[in-house]
Amino acid sequence: MFELLETDTTSAARRGRMDLGRVVVETPVFMPVGTQATVKAMTPDEVWEIGYRLLLANTYHLYLRPGAELIERAGGIHRFMAWKGGVLTDSGGYQVFSLRDLRRVGDDGVRFRSHLDGTEHTFTPEGVMRIEEQIGADVIMAFDECPPYPTTLEYARESMIRTHAWAKRCREAHQTDSLLFGIVQGSVYPELRRESAEYIASLDFPGNAIGGTSVGEPREAMLEAVEICAPLLPANKPRYLMGVGMPLDILDAVARGMDMFDCVLPTRMGRNGTAFTTYGRANIKAARYREEFGPLDPECPCPVCQRYSAAYLRHLYKAGEILSARLLTYHNLSFYYRLMAGIREALDTGHFSDFRREFEGKYRQGESDGDGGASDSTEVDP
Amino acid sequence: MFELLETDTTSAARRGRMDLGRVVVETPVFMPVGTQATVKAMTPDEVWEIGYRLLLANTYHLYLRPGAELIERAGGIHRFMAWKGGVLTDSGGYQVFSLRDLRRVGDDGVRFRSHLDGTEHTFTPEGVMRIEEQIGADVIMAFDECPPYPTTLEYARESMIRTHAWAKRCREAHQTDSLLFGIVQGSVYPELRRESAEYIASLDFPGNAIGGTSVGEPREAMLEAVEICAPLLPANKPRYLMGVGMPLDILDAVARGMDMFDCVLPTRMGRNGTAFTTYGRANIKAARYREEFGPLDPECPCPVCQRYSAAYLRHLYKAGEILSARLLTYHNLSFYYRLMAGIREALDTGHFSDFRREFEGKYRQGESDGDGGASDSTEVDP
Repeated sequence: MFELLETDTTSAARRGRMDLGRVVVETPVFMPVGTQATVKAMTPDEVWEIGYRLLLANTYHLYLRPGAELIERAGGIHRFMAWKGGVLTDSGGYQVFSLRDLRRVGDDGVRFRSHLDGTEHTFTPEGVMRIEEQIGADVIMAFDECPPYPTTLEYARESMIRTHAWAKRCREAHQTDSLLFGIVQGSVYPELRRESAEYIASLDFPGNAIGGTSVGEPREAMLEAVEICAPLLPANKPRYLMGVGMPLDILDAVARGMDMFDCVLPTRMGRNGTAFTTYGRANIKAARYREEFGPLDPECPCPVCQRYSAAYLRHLYKAGEILSARLLTYHNLSFYYRLMAGIREALDTGHFSDFRREFEGKYRQGESDGDGGASDSTEVDP
Repeated sequence: MFELLETDTTSAARRGRMDLGRVVVETPVFMPVGTQATVKAMTPDEVWEIGYRLLLANTYHLYLRPGAELIERAGGIHRFMAWKGGVLTDSGGYQVFSLRDLRRVGDDGVRFRSHLDGTEHTFTPEGVMRIEEQIGADVIMAFDECPPYPTTLEYARESMIRTHAWAKRCREAHQTDSLLFGIVQGSVYPELRRESAEYIASLDFPGNAIGGTSVGEPREAMLEAVEICAPLLPANKPRYLMGVGMPLDILDAVARGMDMFDCVLPTRMGRNGTAFTTYGRANIKAARYREEFGPLDPECPCPVCQRYSAAYLRHLYKAGEILSARLLTYHNLSFYYRLMAGIREALDTGHFSDFRREFEGKYRQGESDGDGGASDSTEVDP
């Protein structure tokens, strides 16, 4: 299902293609986050028209509401949300392990309380496989433990061993023809990352992910984990860096051999009035936009920049209008799509390093505060 | 600019056409409310694609934010909000007089405090004309006093006399080629309504409105005001019933000779999870929609009902998703558009009373609690 088309000569970057049957996904790819079976503020048509063919949905959230059985009875998540593209579901591990006070971890699984109504639930590898299969995504993630940052070497090792055991149980419990991806853990410890990547690679999943990133660790730690793991993960299978990230993070991770990304930042920051532009992030509240009757980003070809002025976008944001969230989300998702399309084209034509240098040169001009910022793959309301 | 095309033989209903230069508006017409230069949750393209060609914006709100001068510098409200259809601005009177504790009325105008930042402002007839001209709508309303309900006969008379004096001053102060409409007041007092309609008619505005409705009065009082005023307002000019209303209110007012309507209900109720359907209003939270994988309204041809299930709409609403507000607003505005298009077609073909009977027959089936409910023409957040 994964075809490696080109490999960059100046870096470990790869150009590939995933055939999900329903849809073909060109890599490197960014997946918008549709936590609750909707990419916040967007219709599925808009997500498609921007160019996206694969999005991420959250197992934990959908399991609690509306329920995996309901989605199954609706005909699966694609039909439920009227999305003709592909869907990847995370394992729920990230969310469950974020519920610090609401959960208890054992080797068999995790008991936790719903953040919605306090009811008790248990996630086991087998149970999560069943839930993800009911939701019906094209790509499903193995149930893993995502340790917080920072975490001790001791706990990171214990947790990694559990994740490995669970990965194997997921593989055994997996029943549908969805693609099950394994997840590498190991926190910021190089020796654990190495061990985990080797173990997960040995389980021969059709795709492999690096998890436990974008949990608050320094950017360098994230890139180090990628540098260690990517070469240990099979070259003929897609490599997914979970929860990453900012545009420059994605470029750096592509250069280190990663193929798939997801992040809430373009959507969440759009709702909060931050736009990604050619020259870095822009705060739509800024006084300089008050009477800027031209576009927010003069170099952006997206329909929002073609049609609406920065002054109007600023007015909508300040007035608390839903249209503000819509338009900035649309613009930001367009920005991310164009970044990935630019990366792919550069890889197709052998100009990845030129593209990267040019993109970074412009983008950094407007980034006074750097481009760090960890993220995650759940859209919780701002 | 107004052409009377047909007059119903069984009622006072009229079929007309307003040529605003920019756009032709078929009447009877419903105008969606775009208080802050946006129809909440919609893009201008969507409003246009549903079929609307004229919308209402609020002078008071736009004057305070982003400011009338800014809109003027942006090239007027059409350009500012990227809307190719027509715009009508109310006079600000309704909003200013709703600020009970924040205003002081004199014969010259009203001093009030902004609900946003407490700053002091004064609206006079001349000042409001200037503001509306800066905003640049196609149709602008005279500055009027909108008394609350209930109000004494004495105050209603005093207020009406002031509104009449202001209407004359507005006519004198009006400078652009926008169309200035007069507003009839008089609260629920038949003798005042008669006197006001005759006076406003005598000022020879290109259109006339009935104001002071949808302020909490009984439905019968609203219809009585229409019955008294409509015949006194010139037949060769459009008649606008401000802030009305629910579907059956509109049908009743059309039958009494009114041509133009505006109301926040389809948009506001959409955001609050209420859908207008062929068989009355429906609460999307209702348990019966939990596993309703068919459309919300099986008889509705709108793209929302064609594409999404009631179960998905319910999920989005319960999950607090912006897409819920978008889709229910789109559906409700489509419902109102189809109601008006149905009225117009029935008038064109001489079947208004049949249409009305059939629409009401179906619509009332689902309306256990009647179809009352006053409204206004400002979209404040729920």
